[in-house]
Amino acid sequence: SVVDKGVDFAQYFCTYAFLYHQKEMLSDRVRMDSYFNAIFQNKHHFHEKTVLDVGTGSGILAIWSAQAGARKVYAVEATKMAEHARALVIANNLQDVVEVIEGSIEDVTLPEKVDVIISEWMGYFLLRESMFDSVICARDRWLKPTGVMYPSHARMWIAPIRSGLGDQKMSDYRSAMDEWYGFVDETKTYYGVDMSVLTKPFSEEQRKYYLQTSMWNNLHPHQVIGTAAVVKDIDCLTATVDDILEVRGSVSSSITLENTRLCGFGGWFDVHFRGSKDDPAQQQIELTTAPSINDSTHWGQQGFPFHPPVRVTEGDNLNISFSMNRSKENHRLMEIEFGCEITQCSGNMVPCFRNKFFIE
Amino acid sequence: SVVDKGVDFAQYFCTYAFLYHQKEMLSDRVRMDSYFNAIFQNKHHFHEKTVLDVGTGSGILAIWSAQAGARKVYAVEATKMAEHARALVIANNLQDVVEVIEGSIEDVTLPEKVDVIISEWMGYFLLRESMFDSVICARDRWLKPTGVMYPSHARMWIAPIRSGLGDQKMSDYRSAMDEWYGFVDETKTYYGVDMSVLTKPFSEEQRKYYLQTSMWNNLHPHQVIGTAAVVKDIDCLTATVDDILEVRGSVSSSITLENTRLCGFGGWFDVHFRGSKDDPAQQQIELTTAPSINDSTHWGQQGFPFHPPVRVTEGDNLNISFSMNRSKENHRLMEIEFGCEITQCSGNMVPCFRNKFFIE
Ligand SMILES: Nc1ncnc2c1ncn2[C@@H]1O[C@H](CSCC[C@H](N)C(=O)O)[C@@H](O)[C@H]1O
Ligand SMILES: Nc1ncnc2c1ncn2[C@@H]1O[C@H](CSCC[C@H](N)C(=O)O)[C@@H](O)[C@H]1O
Repeated sequence: SVVDKGVDFAQYFCTYAFLYHQKEMLSDRVRMDSYFNAIFQNKHHFHEKTVLDVGTGSGILAIWSAQAGARKVYAVEATKMAEHARALVIANNLQDVVEVIEGSIEDVTLPEKVDVIISEWMGYFLLRESMFDSVICARDRWLKPTGVMYPSHARMWIAPIRSGLGDQKMSDYRSAMDEWYGFVDETKTYYGVDMSVLTKPFSEEQRKYYLQTSMWNNLHPHQVIGTAAVVKDIDCLTATVDDILEVRGSVSSSITLENTRLCGFGGWFDVHFRGSKDDPAQQQIELTTAPSINDSTHWGQQGFPFHPPVRVTEGDNLNISFSMNRSKENHRLMEIEFGCEITQCSGNMVPCFRNKFFIE
Repeated sequence: SVVDKGVDFAQYFCTYAFLYHQKEMLSDRVRMDSYFNAIFQNKHHFHEKTVLDVGTGSGILAIWSAQAGARKVYAVEATKMAEHARALVIANNLQDVVEVIEGSIEDVTLPEKVDVIISEWMGYFLLRESMFDSVICARDRWLKPTGVMYPSHARMWIAPIRSGLGDQKMSDYRSAMDEWYGFVDETKTYYGVDMSVLTKPFSEEQRKYYLQTSMWNNLHPHQVIGTAAVVKDIDCLTATVDDILEVRGSVSSSITLENTRLCGFGGWFDVHFRGSKDDPAQQQIELTTAPSINDSTHWGQQGFPFHPPVRVTEGDNLNISFSMNRSKENHRLMEIEFGCEITQCSGNMVPCFRNKFFIE
């Protein structure tokens, strides 16, 4: 990898070392309920078993695993949060079962292989942060051949949306450029330096910031104007890093609303707890981050707004091409390209558009 | 140093690579006027001379130096901004005089020693970012014995202030703790885990964030309630890194307002362009970031609020002890300790208070 490991770790782990940030995750009721139910409604996966919690943070998943009857839980955490996890384990009287190990999972050695790997590794739009790489590494080194993954499956979804955000961002971009032109004038007048040669790079920088950066959104279900489509389906037991380095595909979506505006796409994910083929869950649990009125999550959805919006109506068909790659400068960030062709019910094809986005 | 250079550079330089950020500095009229006047009202320092611009950013100071008649200007910049600086130099037809070099000043080799080192190295409260270290390094390697520094002097100031910020922050802190107690209750009730052992570390984290982090402020001069005092005076021609590693001292301040509240301290800096003893400026120029109605800067002032405020009145005398050190985790950030004793006009001594702050 071109990225220096020290630089990557220093940048990536800083927020997770704060209890404030862990608390945000621990206060996400949808997230918490899913993992809680997945564990306690499938106690047979934990009872008398060995468990590895990859990125234990506050230790919550390790503690639940122990409470569900695990014989031994290895709870690995890269940041100083490990110390708090250790205190929490002791305060909940589970120090005989849960062993907190401070270190990055890639560097840790366990005394045995485990029956279960549990981890909450999902970033925005599933793969941001690239933490699933670490889970794969843990699985390949420490999961027994008969072992199960918690969660066992993950999917990425996209759907056409309407939203005022694209218009807003375009207007922000235009204001920024207006201000720039004033700045160029003044710098010439007052300070004798002609900055106009920087107008192009400045506008590119601002376009990227305002028009090509995906945004955290808490979409209302009514903002979804067509059928949602799966762009990636991951089996956590078998997926390799190569499988997730790039996500690419063509999907279609039908507009389900009459006479509306296609303003862009929304992206989200779900994960499932199904155990494994040979050792299935008794109760399958799903954690979804889809647009929802009452069950929204701290992940929200990623918004990829276009400008200008396009008129569409019920029955129009979208042919969407999608590709996502890791950014070269920081492998934990993503670059996404959307293409879209609209086939109207009349049979007309509306010229396709194409747009690039960064998830930062 | 305990800090890895790659990590430090990756974290430190990221913002400076954006034109948006350079533009913010270039739009600071007080900053721009000072450097502009310092250069163009002291052309004898530049005419036919060699100049080194440490951290040229957009290239502005190098371009002015060339316009003021320099024979040769070396403009060194660590980030990709160097490319924009190069374009700007060419657009202003100064490519025969200004040579832009992309690299960190510590690693760069110049073909000759220079007559002038110019740099805009000042961070919040002067020393945040620790960039003056790089200027010292450049000076010791590349300045002729007869050379001059632009700026030539720098000072740090503190003064007692009144402000609503301390009360606000205390109330924010209390809300955060109230919310935490609710969170602990719910986590126990719904998820069977007792988090109360984390209350102490959480409250410490939050105290640090809300009560011990200095804040950017744009103070109104009326908020300054006593005489300002210099806590550090730097001669840029002779100061060593050791001289600025730590700033420590005792100063006094008299309250100049009747019956008011001492809510904390404000901190700011000024720099001066005086040339050198043997080659003084024709026009001495000052750049101050002191509280001002019309001439505020992007640096503003640092606010160090205490809680609760203390009643003081005209003639009360403050004995302030001050010490500032670099933070161990990141040498570009600072930790500051304030102590204060109040001698009232009556002769009464009000028990001193002590407070630690982080400049982040
Ligand atoms: N390679 C790695 N090795 C160890 N810990 C890692 C890691 N990559 C990420 N982490 C940690 O994984 C955690 C992910 S957040 C989830 C925390 C906790 N399991 C919970 O569900 O609440 C963070 O605390 C992060 O610091
Ligand atoms: N050690 C170092 N070597 C080279 N450049 C450095 C440096 N430390 C900081 N810089 C650069 O110094 C600049 C400081 S900001 C000032 C920019 C410009 N001189 C102006 O006055 O507008 C930033 O662009 C930063 O990237």
